[in-house]
Amino acid sequence: MLHLQSESTARWLNQVDRHLDEVLIDHAHCERKAASTAMNLMTAYTEDRELCREMTRIIVEELEHFEMVLELLQRRGIPFRRLASGPYGKKLNGLIRSSEPDRAVDRLLVASLIEARSCERFSLLSEHIQAKDAELASFYASLFESEARHHTTYVRLAEHFAPRDAVRARLDQLSKCEADIIIEGCSLPRMHS
Amino acid sequence: MLHLQSESTARWLNQVDRHLDEVLIDHAHCERKAASTAMNLMTAYTEDRELCREMTRIIVEELEHFEMVLELLQRRGIPFRRLASGPYGKKLNGLIRSSEPDRAVDRLLVASLIEARSCERFSLLSEHIQAKDAELASFYASLFESEARHHTTYVRLAEHFAPRDAVRARLDQLSKCEADIIIEGCSLPRMHS
Repeated sequence: MLHLQSESTARWLNQVDRHLDEVLIDHAHCERKAASTAMNLMTAYTEDRELCREMTRIIVEELEHFEMVLELLQRRGIPFRRLASGPYGKKLNGLIRSSEPDRAVDRLLVASLIEARSCERFSLLSEHIQAKDAELASFYASLFESEARHHTTYVRLAEHFAPRDAVRARLDQLSKCEADIIIEGCSLPRMHS
Repeated sequence: MLHLQSESTARWLNQVDRHLDEVLIDHAHCERKAASTAMNLMTAYTEDRELCREMTRIIVEELEHFEMVLELLQRRGIPFRRLASGPYGKKLNGLIRSSEPDRAVDRLLVASLIEARSCERFSLLSEHIQAKDAELASFYASLFESEARHHTTYVRLAEHFAPRDAVRARLDQLSKCEADIIIEGCSLPRMHS
């Protein structure tokens, strides 16, 4: 359902165990960035009525999550701060083709894959910390559904810009690249490291 | 209350009378752009907790308004489309100083003045069309309050980056420039022409 071609490994969970605070701060940034991405897509393809409607929904949800993570940080006494970005988003965005309508397809599919990976990691994180941090486990379990829905929405919207078969083929290609980026990993502890 | 130093004139109302459809389309774009501006401010000053909270509120409201204008266009059979931007936003953004924290002050005050001008024009438009288009008059009257509130919020947030006196002095300067831009006008029929 999520079109992912790799599973997150113990390497990432080790990073989470050693640097949970930093991963939580990064998660807040991820939610804000996800809202920002949806806003940029709405600006770029503003004549697409359904896209605007869906982007509005996604922006509102991501900003709610952003607030929720900020509140969680505050409750835990973790100061929110800027973080250097990991390479995940930059590498994925580097795969976006430059000419329209390919560009629209790729922007939407890259957004869909980021949502899918968040979804997979939220689920993994939730299970992993269940025994020692029930509040956090429950929080991540609660976010799972909306991230999965956003993934599906982005893939469906990509079909406004190319035939379904072409979109599926491109999603398969991009998803392979995404899996490689995840396997390569990153030494900074991040939600997508 | 709105810190404006000029009133919109009959010149603008003439443009509205002759090109109402285009002004309505531009209004939809204005709402989307206002949401986008708030998102950019949240990205730039993300460590300011109150700013993030207020930007979230503004984004959600502006996107609601965007949807409302799109629905109004649809009901009236006016196709939504891209429009060349008028010079108003560009000229105002050109006044923003480049070094922080002045830049933050100016970005927030420019946003506050755009909200103030929208507020003034919504009110004027609402009165002007009351007799011949009660639905539209009522719609613009309903938007007045939130635009005025956004203006006040932006001015208050500017005081996170400079002392109150400095903010008021700068608001006065920028407001004079804004008044000049409005007096100069623009031949394209726009919400801020």
